[in-house]
Amino acid sequence: MKIIVINGPNLNMLGKREPKVYGNNTLEDLVSYIKKEFDGRVEIEFFQSNHEGDIIDKLHEANENFDGVVINPGAFTHYSYAIHDAIKSINKQVVEVHISNIHDREEFRQKSVTAKACIGQISGFGFYSYILGVNAIINNR
Amino acid sequence: MKIIVINGPNLNMLGKREPKVYGNNTLEDLVSYIKKEFDGRVEIEFFQSNHEGDIIDKLHEANENFDGVVINPGAFTHYSYAIHDAIKSINKQVVEVHISNIHDREEFRQKSVTAKACIGQISGFGFYSYILGVNAIINNR
Amino acid sequence: MKIIVINGPNLNMLGKREPKVYGNNTLEDLVSYIKKEFDGRVEIEFFQSNHEGDIIDKLHEANENFDGVVINPGAFTHYSYAIHDAIKSINKQVVEVHISNIHDREEFRQKSVTAKACIGQISGFGFYSYILGVNAIINNR
Amino acid sequence: MKIIVINGPNLNMLGKREPKVYGNNTLEDLVSYIKKEFDGRVEIEFFQSNHEGDIIDKLHEANENFDGVVINPGAFTHYSYAIHDAIKSINKQVVEVHISNIHDREEFRQKSVTAKACIGQISGFGFYSYILGVNAIINNR
Amino acid sequence: MKIIVINGPNLNMLGKREPKVYGNNTLEDLVSYIKKEFDGRVEIEFFQSNHEGDIIDKLHEANENFDGVVINPGAFTHYSYAIHDAIKSINKQVVEVHISNIHDREEFRQKSVTAKACIGQISGFGFYSYILGVNAIINNR
Amino acid sequence: MKIIVINGPNLNMLGKREPKVYGNNTLEDLVSYIKKEFDGRVEIEFFQSNHEGDIIDKLHEANENFDGVVINPGAFTHYSYAIHDAIKSINKQVVEVHISNIHDREEFRQKSVTAKACIGQISGFGFYSYILGVNAIINNR
Amino acid sequence: MKIIVINGPNLNMLGKREPKVYGNNTLEDLVSYIKKEFDGRVEIEFFQSNHEGDIIDKLHEANENFDGVVINPGAFTHYSYAIHDAIKSINKQVVEVHISNIHDREEFRQKSVTAKACIGQISGFGFYSYILGVNAIINNR
Amino acid sequence: MKIIVINGPNLNMLGKREPKVYGNNTLEDLVSYIKKEFDGRVEIEFFQSNHEGDIIDKLHEANENFDGVVINPGAFTHYSYAIHDAIKSINKQVVEVHISNIHDREEFRQKSVTAKACIGQISGFGFYSYILGVNAIINNR
Amino acid sequence: MKIIVINGPNLNMLGKREPKVYGNNTLEDLVSYIKKEFDGRVEIEFFQSNHEGDIIDKLHEANENFDGVVINPGAFTHYSYAIHDAIKSINKQVVEVHISNIHDREEFRQKSVTAKACIGQISGFGFYSYILGVNAIINNR
Amino acid sequence: MKIIVINGPNLNMLGKREPKVYGNNTLEDLVSYIKKEFDGRVEIEFFQSNHEGDIIDKLHEANENFDGVVINPGAFTHYSYAIHDAIKSINKQVVEVHISNIHDREEFRQKSVTAKACIGQISGFGFYSYILGVNAIINNR
Amino acid sequence: MKIIVINGPNLNMLGKREPKVYGNNTLEDLVSYIKKEFDGRVEIEFFQSNHEGDIIDKLHEANENFDGVVINPGAFTHYSYAIHDAIKSINKQVVEVHISNIHDREEFRQKSVTAKACIGQISGFGFYSYILGVNAIINNR
Amino acid sequence: MKIIVINGPNLNMLGKREPKVYGNNTLEDLVSYIKKEFDGRVEIEFFQSNHEGDIIDKLHEANENFDGVVINPGAFTHYSYAIHDAIKSINKQVVEVHISNIHDREEFRQKSVTAKACIGQISGFGFYSYILGVNAIINNR
Repeated sequence: MKIIVINGPNLNMLGKREPKVYGNNTLEDLVSYIKKEFDGRVEIEFFQSNHEGDIIDKLHEANENFDGVVINPGAFTHYSYAIHDAIKSINKQVVEVHISNIHDREEFRQKSVTAKACIGQISGFGFYSYILGVNAIINNR
Repeated sequence: MKIIVINGPNLNMLGKREPKVYGNNTLEDLVSYIKKEFDGRVEIEFFQSNHEGDIIDKLHEANENFDGVVINPGAFTHYSYAIHDAIKSINKQVVEVHISNIHDREEFRQKSVTAKACIGQISGFGFYSYILGVNAIINNR
Repeated sequence: MKIIVINGPNLNMLGKREPKVYGNNTLEDLVSYIKKEFDGRVEIEFFQSNHEGDIIDKLHEANENFDGVVINPGAFTHYSYAIHDAIKSINKQVVEVHISNIHDREEFRQKSVTAKACIGQISGFGFYSYILGVNAIINNR
Repeated sequence: MKIIVINGPNLNMLGKREPKVYGNNTLEDLVSYIKKEFDGRVEIEFFQSNHEGDIIDKLHEANENFDGVVINPGAFTHYSYAIHDAIKSINKQVVEVHISNIHDREEFRQKSVTAKACIGQISGFGFYSYILGVNAIINNR
Repeated sequence: MKIIVINGPNLNMLGKREPKVYGNNTLEDLVSYIKKEFDGRVEIEFFQSNHEGDIIDKLHEANENFDGVVINPGAFTHYSYAIHDAIKSINKQVVEVHISNIHDREEFRQKSVTAKACIGQISGFGFYSYILGVNAIINNR
Repeated sequence: MKIIVINGPNLNMLGKREPKVYGNNTLEDLVSYIKKEFDGRVEIEFFQSNHEGDIIDKLHEANENFDGVVINPGAFTHYSYAIHDAIKSINKQVVEVHISNIHDREEFRQKSVTAKACIGQISGFGFYSYILGVNAIINNR
Repeated sequence: MKIIVINGPNLNMLGKREPKVYGNNTLEDLVSYIKKEFDGRVEIEFFQSNHEGDIIDKLHEANENFDGVVINPGAFTHYSYAIHDAIKSINKQVVEVHISNIHDREEFRQKSVTAKACIGQISGFGFYSYILGVNAIINNR
Repeated sequence: MKIIVINGPNLNMLGKREPKVYGNNTLEDLVSYIKKEFDGRVEIEFFQSNHEGDIIDKLHEANENFDGVVINPGAFTHYSYAIHDAIKSINKQVVEVHISNIHDREEFRQKSVTAKACIGQISGFGFYSYILGVNAIINNR
Repeated sequence: MKIIVINGPNLNMLGKREPKVYGNNTLEDLVSYIKKEFDGRVEIEFFQSNHEGDIIDKLHEANENFDGVVINPGAFTHYSYAIHDAIKSINKQVVEVHISNIHDREEFRQKSVTAKACIGQISGFGFYSYILGVNAIINNR
Repeated sequence: MKIIVINGPNLNMLGKREPKVYGNNTLEDLVSYIKKEFDGRVEIEFFQSNHEGDIIDKLHEANENFDGVVINPGAFTHYSYAIHDAIKSINKQVVEVHISNIHDREEFRQKSVTAKACIGQISGFGFYSYILGVNAIINNR
Repeated sequence: MKIIVINGPNLNMLGKREPKVYGNNTLEDLVSYIKKEFDGRVEIEFFQSNHEGDIIDKLHEANENFDGVVINPGAFTHYSYAIHDAIKSINKQVVEVHISNIHDREEFRQKSVTAKACIGQISGFGFYSYILGVNAIINNR
Repeated sequence: MKIIVINGPNLNMLGKREPKVYGNNTLEDLVSYIKKEFDGRVEIEFFQSNHEGDIIDKLHEANENFDGVVINPGAFTHYSYAIHDAIKSINKQVVEVHISNIHDREEFRQKSVTAKACIGQISGFGFYSYILGVNAIINNR
């Protein structure tokens, strides 16, 4: 089983970016954490980009090369109908995850335009949201 | 570790209620499924009610007797500020779960007034949403 | 043929409550009036509650014991998505009725969230709305 | 007793028009059905027009020649304040009826600007909505 | 100088229609009143219709045969963009008048979509609004 | 008969202020124009202020000393509920006038919160709006 | 004179619930405080429930047994049209009170649907709001 | 192949009506232009009316006599749900066309309620929009 | 202890202004009533103005000379963010009071922009609202 | 004559992506179809990108190298003000096309922020929309 | 060169008023700071008022006596269309400045109705916003 | 001191793009102008991109290499929450600038989602807005 974890804009700044909201650990820490959790069970690849187009390209690619996608679209969650359409255009399962509880933040962050196209959304459990997301894909197969 | 799983209105109708959305399994099936999953690891109690007030009372009780709450507030998700306040009034971790992906349903179901008061929300993975919810609490301790 | 007539919050106050809007007759008068009209033709049971949860419970019960439901959800008409879901969760015909013409009252009363789940709505004909409601169920069979 | 049944735009297309919503019977079938139901009890006249102005003219006429009006304003229900005003300008009872349950259709169909001016509204019972409408007028006298 | 006074839907019901709002005088009274006021000074023609299309046709005609138009579009004031466009499509001065003060009535009556296309609007002075309207055209020449 | 004409903020700038909208004539020109029109028939006083409070004070005074008020509240038209209340607090007739056609200007200018409290509104006829306003008061007595 | 003080959902959690907003004193403290204040002057009964239906039942009862009601509907303030209707259905004076200043809290808490049906609302003075509420009833008799 | 081109309100004023928006050519010019373009290939009939009801009648007729409809509903585009329903009630292809680019005009013109019921919409190419519309029908067969 | 009672626009018209809403007593009556109630206990000064600026100036002064402020901002309640800011700019306690129950009046009166900056709001108890307001300040010290 | 056809995000997935909406043909099919249609008449170049920035860059380039642009901005249609500005920043004609009828899809797809900057929009005719788009440019020259 | 700096309501409270937002320096400090910065280069006058009318009067005056205006309208920024109109009525350059970043504060402060009428707006740089504002005027000449 | 000036989409078209709004000078002119102004005082680097992702990448880089950022996000100002988050994720001062006065342009341009994350915003002074922006950073250190 092969899963890709896609991280959207500013997630490369983890550890530096508003630590009260996102914690002190870095993207590298996140990668190791997930890898360790599923070591030997699932093959997981990682991709981060601040470019909406790159994320769309990667989702299209995932259709060929992966069994599922865990995506944290970052701020694109709230306005990228193009990513919404990209998710709808592929046949693999996509799960949306968020580090913080978006339902308890600014008004604009409470609405996800991308979750609509996913099988589900997990929000609020820190890095553990990603673990839950990968499990959701494993379970759903 | 003791967790209570609270199911809100109409979840007693699982299996009968709109099977295309909620599946053919019953509330009893859900209970067995969760119990089996965490057997020997977590003590889990179950509560279902169609009464907003009973859910509030149970949340208050949970503050004394449980280490965490997994709640599917059913339709109350979308308007019960009283349950929102009940969750805020207790000190235990509360996770909101949904069987269907509420972000891909009717307009009114896309907004949760209760998730704001929880540590996070998990939506769209069928009965497995509850498993993820219990895991989220275990992990967060 | 067995039909249940469910009356929601404050309908036990009929006769006392804003008589200019709801008239001077009581809930008992309403019950006699309906019984008399269908005497010998339809078995009709009556239920009134100010508790949203009791109305949901009763709707679930009706699924087993009745051929149809005439419901006046009172103020729950305008916000109880839980009753909406309860109606959707059963297989029997449900007709929504109102004593006053809700389309000609306060803004908030002009929108029904429960009628969506019923086969239809009848509004504005005083107690006679209930007679029309029962007839609608008889006819629809 | 003399009642006029007024049908608004596109109701002449009954039987051809979206049969899943409006059924396979024609306007002529509707007329016979109503006539038969009240034969010998009420004198009923029928009028259909796709012209808002003709409906207004007919409502004004009804003030002189009829004891009541059953009206299905079709799509005019949702924007014709002129028909609203026409109903308010006459002294006879007017009942609004709809074949389909407008509360469970497109957003724009869920709001009636004409029902406000009627004594009540009946919606969702197919052709039987008209029977209920005529009965509502008979009863209200 | 030749002016046409166009009255929209339900103004033929003046005297019968909601006398508390529109008074007890009839359309004929209105016509005599205006005629008398401008007798020998302005040639005034009158037109009333409940048909939006007839009002549009008449406005187009007015472009050829009249020096100005005083129009009370009745309920069309609030939604007839077609009349708005008809007024914009002619080169003669058009003044909108209302018997009642539309700014102090139902929400929907407080917005005029037709006044935008006129040189101005006069509202609230009973039949005298028409006298002011004719004067406004005389003065503007 | 004694009437007061109240001009609100920035009307002292007439002639200088956006001449394309308000014309080239000054407030003094406006005063002479009105005085001349009603010379010998009506005693007219004039008041202009850029201060909302002064306009309210003057309206209260008008209750004692004048038979009617013609008011152009300028921009206060669109937000001064205090002037709205001041007009409601007196027993004399108040007519709102505007030089430009406010229905054809910026969105914010299309809504009047003060006209609600007046007997009517006249808008769009340049300085002649004031003449119509005074006539409306004379006629209404 | 007999007054009932009704406390809505989560007010049984006073002292535990968000102490920064609601203070450290308990519901029992509140009861003693009010009793002491009116000792010998007014007979005061207390009722708290997390159940909307129980509050409605109690309001109906109050119509028979009490001279006035002081109610803090908790979160029901913001959506319970059923409680609004219950207050309207009784003839005794009802005063709404809030511990915190609801006008300075979350958007949803700034609108009261129940205050509309009361004689007035008092908000922001801690437990003292109840004292003011009882006084308001005493004074109003 | 037989196609009907239906023009809505004020299109008879082409050439006179706001020439900066709609150009200097008349409706007759439009007719000749289209006829010439499809001469010998498609039989095209033309209909223009300022009456919503006539347009609905004509659409119903078109169901019997034509293979397709090109319609410019004029201002009815923005509010005539009755025309929307008429289009839905027939089985022939209907294409909506506009002379000006409605997406770049007043707010109210940017929303089409009729396009929803058509196979598509073409907007902004002057009279050539009609040529494209006819071609769209030819191609779609 | 020194308190100032500030009355906003049109409260000088008490007794004359819409007596059905505000009663028949004058501002002088209000002043005597309050003075009498707190005679010997609290030193109370009174200020009334129809000028937003004067009320702001007085609030600033109050910061130096008074221990608390009871303010009825009249219509300024609903739009004067400047008064909101003035209240926030001082360190003394400010209580907002209203004679009528603003929650049961026109839509625009149901929102207070000034209450947000006060410690609380009291609305609906006639002149007695002021007594409650003064008591609230006394108690809060 | 040289025209460029720009396809936005996810159009590279044609044939795979939601075939019920977009059909079974691929982007390559689309390219061949257009090329064949205009072979020998117009030189057409093709560009597809999932990157908003690339589309903007290409539009700027088009200003130098092409006589016109046919653009299907995909989901960018609904939020990319940057593409809107890019279209406005060039002097060549730009026509917006859509495969599906966007006016009959999800709410968010019914509003185009880019069409405003184009000469017109064509929506709903499958791949033939592009043919119409190219024709519109040819004709407009 | 002569410039006037106009400060609106509550800016006389600088230093006392919410120091976390506006700092600890007073209006006098602000005046000295600006004077010192432009000493010998620009003649600067200062005006502060809590009265909307005084600010309007001063703007009119500025038209005669100054080369430019730097204005901080305080809370009037968000609702004073009268100040907006005053700025539009004069021919001198007006620059709006704010001490705090209004785009990052309460919802109501994020919209400026006065900036529309200015040449530009500067917001967020503390007292230095004024220096930038004066420079903007100097540069623009 | 090292500052980077970031220009967003379409600013490379300066001089060609809507010259009435943005002037006739090019991006190169802008660069020279700023360089000249701060020559020898501040080291300024320039970056322009039409790609949202590139701007985000550059902002992250700026965190390491620059003391401050002056950014004109172009159309991204109005919807790029990703850029908003990027600004929040770095510790250097960021100032938003605009050439035109965005408060006086289309509705969509009047709201900035990025200014919220900056220390302030400067809008409306042509190229000079950048000079003010750089000065604001210099001053703030």
